[in-house]
Amino acid sequence: MKKDDKILELFKKNKDSFLSGREVSQSLSISRQALWKHIEKLRELGYTIEAVPHLGYKLLQVPDKTLVSEIKWNLKTKIIGSEIHYYETVGSTNNIAYELATEGAREGTVVIADEQTKGKGRLGREWVSPSEGGVYISCVLRPDILPNEVPKITLVAAVSAVKTIRQFSGLKALIRWPNDILISDRKAGGILVELKAEIDRINFAILGIGLNINTSRRLLPKGATSIKEESKSSSDFSRVEFVKVLFKVLEKEYLKFKEDGFRAIRNDLKSYSCTLGRFVSITISGKRKFHGKAVDIDKNGALVIRLENGSHETFLTGDVTLIR
Amino acid sequence: MKKDDKILELFKKNKDSFLSGREVSQSLSISRQALWKHIEKLRELGYTIEAVPHLGYKLLQVPDKTLVSEIKWNLKTKIIGSEIHYYETVGSTNNIAYELATEGAREGTVVIADEQTKGKGRLGREWVSPSEGGVYISCVLRPDILPNEVPKITLVAAVSAVKTIRQFSGLKALIRWPNDILISDRKAGGILVELKAEIDRINFAILGIGLNINTSRRLLPKGATSIKEESKSSSDFSRVEFVKVLFKVLEKEYLKFKEDGFRAIRNDLKSYSCTLGRFVSITISGKRKFHGKAVDIDKNGALVIRLENGSHETFLTGDVTLIR
Repeated sequence: MKKDDKILELFKKNKDSFLSGREVSQSLSISRQALWKHIEKLRELGYTIEAVPHLGYKLLQVPDKTLVSEIKWNLKTKIIGSEIHYYETVGSTNNIAYELATEGAREGTVVIADEQTKGKGRLGREWVSPSEGGVYISCVLRPDILPNEVPKITLVAAVSAVKTIRQFSGLKALIRWPNDILISDRKAGGILVELKAEIDRINFAILGIGLNINTSRRLLPKGATSIKEESKSSSDFSRVEFVKVLFKVLEKEYLKFKEDGFRAIRNDLKSYSCTLGRFVSITISGKRKFHGKAVDIDKNGALVIRLENGSHETFLTGDVTLIR
Repeated sequence: MKKDDKILELFKKNKDSFLSGREVSQSLSISRQALWKHIEKLRELGYTIEAVPHLGYKLLQVPDKTLVSEIKWNLKTKIIGSEIHYYETVGSTNNIAYELATEGAREGTVVIADEQTKGKGRLGREWVSPSEGGVYISCVLRPDILPNEVPKITLVAAVSAVKTIRQFSGLKALIRWPNDILISDRKAGGILVELKAEIDRINFAILGIGLNINTSRRLLPKGATSIKEESKSSSDFSRVEFVKVLFKVLEKEYLKFKEDGFRAIRNDLKSYSCTLGRFVSITISGKRKFHGKAVDIDKNGALVIRLENGSHETFLTGDVTLIR
């Protein structure tokens, strides 16, 4: 553990009371002057630390940046977040995670940023990722599945994101198959899975999750929203706490999927779907377009649509527009 | 064009005659001394260049290394080999091509090496790539297809490799579905396709082709062979010429596939298959195993096997062993 993290741990274990500089510096075996430098560094990171002569230091507030030390504090996961790379600002967390995975990063390694300047959506689209209030995460996964099963990873992540939002805010988040997270019919988040693969095995998958937590609607594209906007809350949610819940839920769902297969999450997926039962149009690779009623998500995670002529078509992926 | 390439071009245009140093240095606008340095450099690369006082220089022999300048000379392709990166020795040409593609290398960019120290086969296996006599090539492709269509790229490449070997040596090379190139039931080459993809589009595919041209059997694993071994030839084949034919054939087959789809190569694939009509066992992901007679390669490139119980199963990929 780094000295900074040790200092924070001492502060957090002694919440609401002052810790004398002598105590802290002795328990870390550093000089009072060195301690002072660490305190200054923590303040620069956004920690509010009170210093009172003769009493010592007290931690008043932790920053709501998604700092590694804050996320790791009491994080109850074994895989997801076992290694965390944090950036204040970054081009695309997926790109960095992809590089790390290429170099051999183990499953569960996470890249997290407070801001993405080139956030990626599906099919080369932009994912607007302003610095105020979003959570942008990419996770290295190494599941032992075939490349054509990778769409299921998107669905596992979508279920996890919805469960997290519901647990965290009480909002009835839904999934617009396959990868959009909606709240009140507005887009609050999305999933982007990228993979390196051969024909009959995947080397790794990068699971990218972007979610608008406290983001103001004016910073987002038309039709997008955030948890804070939808909950009509005046104060910000803690993104750090959100991430910790997300990691825990994601790990649980992912392990379920690895052990029992897709059927273990299919029911949740169907119950969270805002697509099923609706008339939709679906576009494949920006070219072919189909209309009909979404009637099922099958055992492969494919959307089943009853076309206007009465026949059924299944789609492993596509762009869905809800018609009515 | 580089100075070295210009010098070679002059030599090749004036085959069988001497070129005076004055002529060459004037047409390149360099000093006689600079020309001498270039000649020395070319000799180091393996070119045999005669120098006779008062007569000048004559190119006697080009090296059978797969040098860029030699491959580019009179290369009649538009896409494949439009950019070539040559290495004497390399870990894996696929890895380098993957990096180049990640950085935006255009379709047709080729990495070629005389030796691979960590040549890759399917499923993390080793591909033995000794420096004497093999051709190891990786090509960046950017086809507008879905990830589940990528196995077809393997098959397009296999057809191209077989056509090239037949055209070049007259040997009846065959394809052991999906990615092995056999001559007289021995393995003479293989295909490894790796891809970067999202769920509904591929970013790029790296097509790796390894073929044993002049390789001595004693340098190869058991059951492997080379074109030279099978043709009982005492002299080496020109790897440079082989590569040039391969690029041309590959480009033709690939464009056919892009324009008319997989059906454009399916007939050739079936006629070159040594799998069809044979009793085979097929292993999926090293786990499930099936036995039966290979009866078809379907419109998706999948192998259709009639199992012992009479039912038909189709396989998009797998490890095939020919039984009888």
